[in-house]
Amino acid sequence: MIGGGIGSFFGPVHRMAAALDGQAEYVCGAFSADPDKSHRSGQELYLNPARVYADYQEMVAKESALPLDRRIDFVSIVTPNVYHFEAAKLCLEAGFNVICDKPMTGNLAEAKALKSIVAKSHKVFALTHTYTGYPMVKQARFLVQQGALGKINKVVVEYPQGWLAGFLESGVTAATMWRTDPQKAGVSLCMGDIGIHAENLVRYVTGLKVEKVCADVSHFIPGNQLDDDADILVRYQGGVKGMLSASQISTGEENGLNIRVYGTKNGLYWNQETPNYLTLKAKEGYTTTYSKGNKILCPAAQNAARLPPGHPEGIIEALANIYLEAFRAIRDGSGKRKNTIYDFPNVDDGVIGMAFVETALASASSDRKWMEMLSTEK
Amino acid sequence: MIGGGIGSFFGPVHRMAAALDGQAEYVCGAFSADPDKSHRSGQELYLNPARVYADYQEMVAKESALPLDRRIDFVSIVTPNVYHFEAAKLCLEAGFNVICDKPMTGNLAEAKALKSIVAKSHKVFALTHTYTGYPMVKQARFLVQQGALGKINKVVVEYPQGWLAGFLESGVTAATMWRTDPQKAGVSLCMGDIGIHAENLVRYVTGLKVEKVCADVSHFIPGNQLDDDADILVRYQGGVKGMLSASQISTGEENGLNIRVYGTKNGLYWNQETPNYLTLKAKEGYTTTYSKGNKILCPAAQNAARLPPGHPEGIIEALANIYLEAFRAIRDGSGKRKNTIYDFPNVDDGVIGMAFVETALASASSDRKWMEMLSTEK
Amino acid sequence: MIGGGIGSFFGPVHRMAAALDGQAEYVCGAFSADPDKSHRSGQELYLNPARVYADYQEMVAKESALPLDRRIDFVSIVTPNVYHFEAAKLCLEAGFNVICDKPMTGNLAEAKALKSIVAKSHKVFALTHTYTGYPMVKQARFLVQQGALGKINKVVVEYPQGWLAGFLESGVTAATMWRTDPQKAGVSLCMGDIGIHAENLVRYVTGLKVEKVCADVSHFIPGNQLDDDADILVRYQGGVKGMLSASQISTGEENGLNIRVYGTKNGLYWNQETPNYLTLKAKEGYTTTYSKGNKILCPAAQNAARLPPGHPEGIIEALANIYLEAFRAIRDGSGKRKNTIYDFPNVDDGVIGMAFVETALASASSDRKWMEMLSTEK
Amino acid sequence: MIGGGIGSFFGPVHRMAAALDGQAEYVCGAFSADPDKSHRSGQELYLNPARVYADYQEMVAKESALPLDRRIDFVSIVTPNVYHFEAAKLCLEAGFNVICDKPMTGNLAEAKALKSIVAKSHKVFALTHTYTGYPMVKQARFLVQQGALGKINKVVVEYPQGWLAGFLESGVTAATMWRTDPQKAGVSLCMGDIGIHAENLVRYVTGLKVEKVCADVSHFIPGNQLDDDADILVRYQGGVKGMLSASQISTGEENGLNIRVYGTKNGLYWNQETPNYLTLKAKEGYTTTYSKGNKILCPAAQNAARLPPGHPEGIIEALANIYLEAFRAIRDGSGKRKNTIYDFPNVDDGVIGMAFVETALASASSDRKWMEMLSTEK
Repeated sequence: MIGGGIGSFFGPVHRMAAALDGQAEYVCGAFSADPDKSHRSGQELYLNPARVYADYQEMVAKESALPLDRRIDFVSIVTPNVYHFEAAKLCLEAGFNVICDKPMTGNLAEAKALKSIVAKSHKVFALTHTYTGYPMVKQARFLVQQGALGKINKVVVEYPQGWLAGFLESGVTAATMWRTDPQKAGVSLCMGDIGIHAENLVRYVTGLKVEKVCADVSHFIPGNQLDDDADILVRYQGGVKGMLSASQISTGEENGLNIRVYGTKNGLYWNQETPNYLTLKAKEGYTTTYSKGNKILCPAAQNAARLPPGHPEGIIEALANIYLEAFRAIRDGSGKRKNTIYDFPNVDDGVIGMAFVETALASASSDRKWMEMLSTEK
Repeated sequence: MIGGGIGSFFGPVHRMAAALDGQAEYVCGAFSADPDKSHRSGQELYLNPARVYADYQEMVAKESALPLDRRIDFVSIVTPNVYHFEAAKLCLEAGFNVICDKPMTGNLAEAKALKSIVAKSHKVFALTHTYTGYPMVKQARFLVQQGALGKINKVVVEYPQGWLAGFLESGVTAATMWRTDPQKAGVSLCMGDIGIHAENLVRYVTGLKVEKVCADVSHFIPGNQLDDDADILVRYQGGVKGMLSASQISTGEENGLNIRVYGTKNGLYWNQETPNYLTLKAKEGYTTTYSKGNKILCPAAQNAARLPPGHPEGIIEALANIYLEAFRAIRDGSGKRKNTIYDFPNVDDGVIGMAFVETALASASSDRKWMEMLSTEK
Repeated sequence: MIGGGIGSFFGPVHRMAAALDGQAEYVCGAFSADPDKSHRSGQELYLNPARVYADYQEMVAKESALPLDRRIDFVSIVTPNVYHFEAAKLCLEAGFNVICDKPMTGNLAEAKALKSIVAKSHKVFALTHTYTGYPMVKQARFLVQQGALGKINKVVVEYPQGWLAGFLESGVTAATMWRTDPQKAGVSLCMGDIGIHAENLVRYVTGLKVEKVCADVSHFIPGNQLDDDADILVRYQGGVKGMLSASQISTGEENGLNIRVYGTKNGLYWNQETPNYLTLKAKEGYTTTYSKGNKILCPAAQNAARLPPGHPEGIIEALANIYLEAFRAIRDGSGKRKNTIYDFPNVDDGVIGMAFVETALASASSDRKWMEMLSTEK
Repeated sequence: MIGGGIGSFFGPVHRMAAALDGQAEYVCGAFSADPDKSHRSGQELYLNPARVYADYQEMVAKESALPLDRRIDFVSIVTPNVYHFEAAKLCLEAGFNVICDKPMTGNLAEAKALKSIVAKSHKVFALTHTYTGYPMVKQARFLVQQGALGKINKVVVEYPQGWLAGFLESGVTAATMWRTDPQKAGVSLCMGDIGIHAENLVRYVTGLKVEKVCADVSHFIPGNQLDDDADILVRYQGGVKGMLSASQISTGEENGLNIRVYGTKNGLYWNQETPNYLTLKAKEGYTTTYSKGNKILCPAAQNAARLPPGHPEGIIEALANIYLEAFRAIRDGSGKRKNTIYDFPNVDDGVIGMAFVETALASASSDRKWMEMLSTEK
């Protein structure tokens, strides 16, 4: 693991998720830019001190020197955003598979560059858009693919959070957190942290790509150099309309990512805070709610559940599902994956996500005009 | 009553609402542009045939000729939109108080003209933005006024319906309904029918006026000359951001008007389909739900409930609350209402509403650009 | 109307419900045992003072003396429970149709006697078990009758309220309210007021009659001579098991009547506080929610809705549905109702309800033993 | 681990939970009564084949012979119920700490015997009443202890499941599953499997012990020798009333354990299917909902969450919380736990649980009479 040391929020979650099903074990790490903190973190994790490194450069160098049967199979990258690119590049070029937190990079240019690096590496690169790991999100995707919704006309996706609202009256500025620091977060706070999940969720469920956006991206927190609220009108392929919003100042909201898709036959609703349920709303006037773990679900949804219906599973399990798919790809031998489809977000998703973020920011800074999606090609 | 004859959807609802509390009785009417239908409608309502009229012109003329103690006190206007203006004008000028369905008129120019007419008439003019009659909407307004939310930063209001979605695959066009006919509906279908309620609800609850909009207003129904879906970015006074959407093609949605207001201290949530509940979401991480009929609510909310907590009240009762307030103003003697505040939507609300509708349409037809709110002054 | 004067809780609700659809008008009344209060009540209702009576005996005598075309068609009885019997008897014997609040009488013996009186009178007698007037309760009954649930195994019905809990810590005793006074309420407070609704709801939806009960009926409120909490094990016909509870000390509950029916194919759920929805839970692992006003519902449910889906209707409308059915029977000419089924609770329901209440009380006072249902025959 | 081999439902869940926080690793096991299956199970878990045993007797013998620093610290017992006693006895007497699935034993006599064995062993014995591991259950307990509810009057706890309903119409009997086999399940199916959780949850949250029960325990499934449905009237200490039900034939219910506690000040509600929320219903007429991960919760609830608010955690995490507490006790040195309170269910809970199960069965088989709780003393 690179990053994720003491005090990290998502580092432990990655460790739990990766280890949940007994298919992987973290054996080494460079847990912090601060070597001392890295070593203390390794100690807390009961790691062999010899395999706890001062920085990721050292880690990649020393691990690469180990015999194949002792060498690590993959690296999880959970550093602040701007370090993802260099860390991933180094790992991939050294022949390690990579599982990387989102946003994939600090900006779009790096994202495109990373795509080339992944292609050359013939290694697995998985991006942890965690929410696509939920069973009922897979069922949503299945229902859309089966035509249960008819032709899609409209997609509404929201990602409201309120945690930054705490700063609004407190007089504290946002300057102390890495997420609010452009030097560590990259081009965006709110869009990069959560807006990017919203775009990914839409595309995962519906397959629709964004064509144009008109984005009102701004910030409310005093001293915030980056965005903390984004409301976006979207036009997808084929005339599909939509709204996409992401906010960190929606007071009292916790982590309310939710999606509604309206087709000619049915509407669909899923909410991350009640992740084990999925609702279909029929044109004829009744709603059907599906729940995790039942045998009437599609195979992907069934496989993504570890427990019977009514036994709640959460976000750790969702992330673990992404790890499981990445492990499957790794076991298959990273470069020989012909005719196999792996159900995890990959480097293409990362490029599209960063293009979406930069397009929204560009629209917002051009008097909030409509703007075509930036190219994801070089 | 003008309009609201056999087959009408909202006519009977107005009759039930007006009569609910035993303060009014309909004694005459011109229920349809078709004189025969008007008479049959009157018969069904057990009215004196002599007071069932062929058209509203006849009604106003004959009722005006009656002695004061037998003359009607007010007229409810529930015709298709475009006839509101002429009917209201005639009634007001003849000295009758008017309770008029929304949208107030077929366009903004008429709305402004009606405002002058109302002012000259010294009569009560109430506009039935029904949703503001709900007890918990009054409590929401009270909480905002008391500062419970802190400074407001963002308002999200949605009005999704799916009833037109039935036309999407059926091959049936929308041409048969008056709401879809510009000759009867006026400038808009979706915005005029429901988007206007969304704007009114925001303003009633928060007091905020729209400053600018960027509107993606369009239609999906084949053959629809008017709009059936609208997604709008909004900037309110004081830098408040917002999204406002209205849709009649959101398959499976019934009548899902809902509002979220985010302040520096609390977020607030209300949904028309569960109207007896109001939720406040605290920055500190808990939510409080208030329900209709309890003694801890503000006086306006308490007075607007007829039954104790847990005994559901619905939209008829909400509309009846607007009628009750209009009756109170009428009893006070329409022109002598000094120092009294009546809690019903009035002609000013109607002008602002029509300005909002026309601004949104103008933005949409100008390549969906941002546009300043049209003037509500002459 | 008999009873329901100034300060009454359910009197105004009956008036609103009876008048809602424009088919009836209250023209006379004896609104209180206190003649002065009766007259003031009549005044508030804009009634002709000549038809506001000092007591119901006077009302029945004088109204009977009126010519047929001016005479009242029906009487609503909304007095405290113990007066229902005498008032209903007098009205029926004088040839007036009766719509009577529940519980039908103060005890079982009176209930049986009233049944004979109704039979002899050839008049309509309707009992306002309001909850059976909700559209989705009718849909629930339809689904059971259609076999959608399969064979029923278990029924759970609860009626929790918390309004008496206010007395628990306040030191105030319950002695001031008529509902807690055996001289006015009859044999029971909680069972007679709400437990009886629970039994009626089960029987309306499933058709099942209670065979045996084991009842833990008791009181928590200081000074309460009657019951305020009842938990009952029930065995219905055909080996169906169940639990039935009614409580007025369930702090924070408002009016939470709800029913769950479990069959071999589906479970069913309805809750009075969200009355416009009905949920079916399939053995196969999905749930379907039906909502009021849709065309896929059974005719009885469709007819019981006045407004389209998503426009909430509440308890006044439910009660109005019972009135409408009673009016239909009255119009049909009370005694000539061959081959017509009227969908309102009648005197048989009243007898069964009182038998259930007395059986539960008997079980509770016999060391809470199991007890066979008391006979509903003379 | 003893039990939990291939095909087991709860074995993998215990493994995930125990390993979740990186504090434990399974290194050996006797996974099945079938030695071959045990070995295949070990292989799937990447265990050293030398430490995969044919049966638990072999495991205990061989592990005991290992040097202290290589020996296991604890054993998880997840066999069918009737084997718990012998397995736990052997482990404890060999000096191993034990974490045992519920119900603790096949009957009450064994439970009492096990209590003595635990006492003599000076080892940790934890019983996995998983639901008490949820953060919001800890908050519920805290609120009760703080007096937020006032004096408790009534407790309603339900545990409805519908999974056995699948057998009701299929013609398949229940004979094939170990849970329905008295030789493996012990004295009870439904009460032992889930009713026992309901009792434990009430006691954990409120501290209340059952004094008397009147139990209607029966079965609906053809061929079922044990119970599949139980409705119980309960009297707790201090005059507190209650209902407790457990059912496996409540069609369409998944795993709906829920508890309501009514005090003089507040009612409380928690439902296992939405475990991250807890609702308090105030006498004054509003409800407050708390959610997992917030800083306003009590320390026990905060510590039991791994992720911020809005990031759902489920049953694996709840079970992991019980393991964490057991590990803490183990690290403290099992026998020297003076003045420390460990928050996990222990052998006393197991004895009380089995006494409750047997009391309910005894009541049911004595014509469903009221019965005093069986003694938990020798």
